[in-house]
Amino acid sequence: MRELRLVTGNMHKLQEFQHGLGQLGITVSLLKADCDEVQADTLEEVVRSCLDQIADQGHEDFILDDSGLFVHALNGFPGVYSSYVFSTIGNDGILKLLNGSEDRTAHFECCIGCHLCGERIIVTGRSSGEITMGPRGSDGFGYDPVFQPDGAQRTFAEMGLEEKGRYSHRGDAMRHFVAELDKRMGRNNR
Amino acid sequence: MRELRLVTGNMHKLQEFQHGLGQLGITVSLLKADCDEVQADTLEEVVRSCLDQIADQGHEDFILDDSGLFVHALNGFPGVYSSYVFSTIGNDGILKLLNGSEDRTAHFECCIGCHLCGERIIVTGRSSGEITMGPRGSDGFGYDPVFQPDGAQRTFAEMGLEEKGRYSHRGDAMRHFVAELDKRMGRNNR
Repeated sequence: MRELRLVTGNMHKLQEFQHGLGQLGITVSLLKADCDEVQADTLEEVVRSCLDQIADQGHEDFILDDSGLFVHALNGFPGVYSSYVFSTIGNDGILKLLNGSEDRTAHFECCIGCHLCGERIIVTGRSSGEITMGPRGSDGFGYDPVFQPDGAQRTFAEMGLEEKGRYSHRGDAMRHFVAELDKRMGRNNR
Repeated sequence: MRELRLVTGNMHKLQEFQHGLGQLGITVSLLKADCDEVQADTLEEVVRSCLDQIADQGHEDFILDDSGLFVHALNGFPGVYSSYVFSTIGNDGILKLLNGSEDRTAHFECCIGCHLCGERIIVTGRSSGEITMGPRGSDGFGYDPVFQPDGAQRTFAEMGLEEKGRYSHRGDAMRHFVAELDKRMGRNNR
């Protein structure tokens, strides 16, 4: 069993990583470390910059992610600034901005970065779906109550960890991550 | 006559600085240099980080600014992310978010940072006003068509450089900047 430390201040994320990577044979604990997020065009740039900063602080064998909601009728807003936008205008703001819009499609993206034995792994996961007409459910966090992934009848906030992990951008990214880990390290080392 | 170089990719800003600082005895030319904007809580943090980065590239005697629109009913949104938000949801988005809101008050802030003879000057200017019911005017840039400063009957986009400079956050910041320059350098050096 491999162990990784997750850099986050979001306990929901920690739970999702513990659940998702736990199923794939990796235990996850918390690493307290700070990173100044750059104003970048992509999640990957933010992740690369945070990997640098935290490695520069002397940490090894850690993982982190950055995620965003991209609403197609809003030119990808709130995108890389999702968490700031959530803290100011929230789900109500997103719903208001889509008032009268026929196109309610959106996707979530999650970029995971890992620094392991001096090497880096960076993978991205995605979940396509649409913005609901109103918030539904109270699980999860952030935009979960207003996002229903394709193929599901429930929003992320109406799903438990297990179901959300099957549909979500973070679950998708975690599966890519473990596949990449397997490829690099060989299954026997875990 | 003192000369300063402005770091910007925005020709409207260059004009405003040339006009505003020109009146105060400083000529402004353009400096091409890049800075990665950090995701910060305040304009000042962004400005400090950009001053560092551009000074690290070996430049001297330059000026730059970061500005934001803070809408009070939206918890300060779009704030430090004003330019990203403008490029995605634009003025239409701001107007939509304020649909049905009685409180339309907002303020603009402009933080100017200057690196001069190895010293730093950082000042902030402010303009209070409100978000109009619809866009008016075609001068200026960004949120200018939907912002009417207190005491004026026109939006920033309905004003020429001269009038906008009297009311605007950037004009206010430029006056603070020159006052600070005078204090430090002595009026005789200019």
